[in-house]
Amino acid sequence: MKIAVLGTGMVGDAIGTRLVELGHSVMMGSRTAGNEKAVAFVAKQNNGKASAGTFADAAAFGEIIFNCTKGVEAINILNSAGAGNLDGKTLIDVTNPLDFSKGMPPTLSVCNTTSLAEEIQSAFPGIKVVKSLNTMWCGLMVNPGMLNGGDHNVFMSGNDAGAKKQVGEILKSFGWKENNIIDLGDIKTARGTEMMLPVWLSIFTSTNNGAFNFKVIR
Amino acid sequence: MKIAVLGTGMVGDAIGTRLVELGHSVMMGSRTAGNEKAVAFVAKQNNGKASAGTFADAAAFGEIIFNCTKGVEAINILNSAGAGNLDGKTLIDVTNPLDFSKGMPPTLSVCNTTSLAEEIQSAFPGIKVVKSLNTMWCGLMVNPGMLNGGDHNVFMSGNDAGAKKQVGEILKSFGWKENNIIDLGDIKTARGTEMMLPVWLSIFTSTNNGAFNFKVIR
Repeated sequence: MKIAVLGTGMVGDAIGTRLVELGHSVMMGSRTAGNEKAVAFVAKQNNGKASAGTFADAAAFGEIIFNCTKGVEAINILNSAGAGNLDGKTLIDVTNPLDFSKGMPPTLSVCNTTSLAEEIQSAFPGIKVVKSLNTMWCGLMVNPGMLNGGDHNVFMSGNDAGAKKQVGEILKSFGWKENNIIDLGDIKTARGTEMMLPVWLSIFTSTNNGAFNFKVIR
Repeated sequence: MKIAVLGTGMVGDAIGTRLVELGHSVMMGSRTAGNEKAVAFVAKQNNGKASAGTFADAAAFGEIIFNCTKGVEAINILNSAGAGNLDGKTLIDVTNPLDFSKGMPPTLSVCNTTSLAEEIQSAFPGIKVVKSLNTMWCGLMVNPGMLNGGDHNVFMSGNDAGAKKQVGEILKSFGWKENNIIDLGDIKTARGTEMMLPVWLSIFTSTNNGAFNFKVIR
């Protein structure tokens, strides 16, 4: 499948690399086609499946879009990617609206009565937004088996059942077991997973270990 | 030990009952000394260890205070309990700032840049506030063993190490294993656990089961 990864940070790199490894054709999008990190990403894949371009190039290329941008910049970036390049496609929103401008620990730029995922869905009604994977370190997103035999949880929120099914298939290809994928409901439920970031950061800080995840025990 | 439980709801009843069972003397505090639920709570304990009174009576009685009031009313209630009755004592804050006035799902009346626990600590600097137990259904708070052999987590946030130690002992008496009690740090980290409520509610709604808890897998 042709997949766009928007963003050149650790998360975009981890997801893009894993998608290429699984045989997908991946275009990494960034502000400029010659972005250093995107070029390095392409260079380290050795099966010719990776490419780089602008946000608009990548959005036009991908049948599915991973949003791995900085949360507070996401809507501007999606605007520059162009609604026409995104409409009708599934967008997997991995970002969190972390605002570091007021010091540490970061606060959320939106929360409680809305969420970044809802803001994106509302700004781009033609996109099928599915919030997922945003509650953990990127190493675990694409390789859940590195912890507890993969027995921990990933959440999903979105309005479109078909898009969530598509995301579920990708998650399973990453190694997530079906019964560990929790569909929380519509896109409003993304408030809950985005609001897990403060406790995530406190656990990270108090244990000095980011390679953890939550499991719902029932 | 003499313990005050402020609040007559399900949470206060579950915690008060468990404390009496463990041999503590418990006074349940409410607006009026003759509160129906408090009277019923006292009547069902049969070892003479339970009593009821006003918030001020209970606060004066307890060496330790459990705050099991409605979060949005907590500061008013603590004011009516009286700083003079509370100062120097450990207050275990089990409440969440859930605001149901804007419809379902509830939002939080405070979050992100502060928390209810911080607001209480700031309004009553003489109290040693420890946030704990607020991330789960009350049945599990006092009986963690009913799920997965007790193997899931409870969090703690607070500024006073001695108070957190005291709370840790109470949690252990409830059945929490030491390595499942996670000290997140100072009272500011209560933002994280209070902000888990939206995802808690979404999991509850999507699975139709409130008897679950989170386990940090690492």
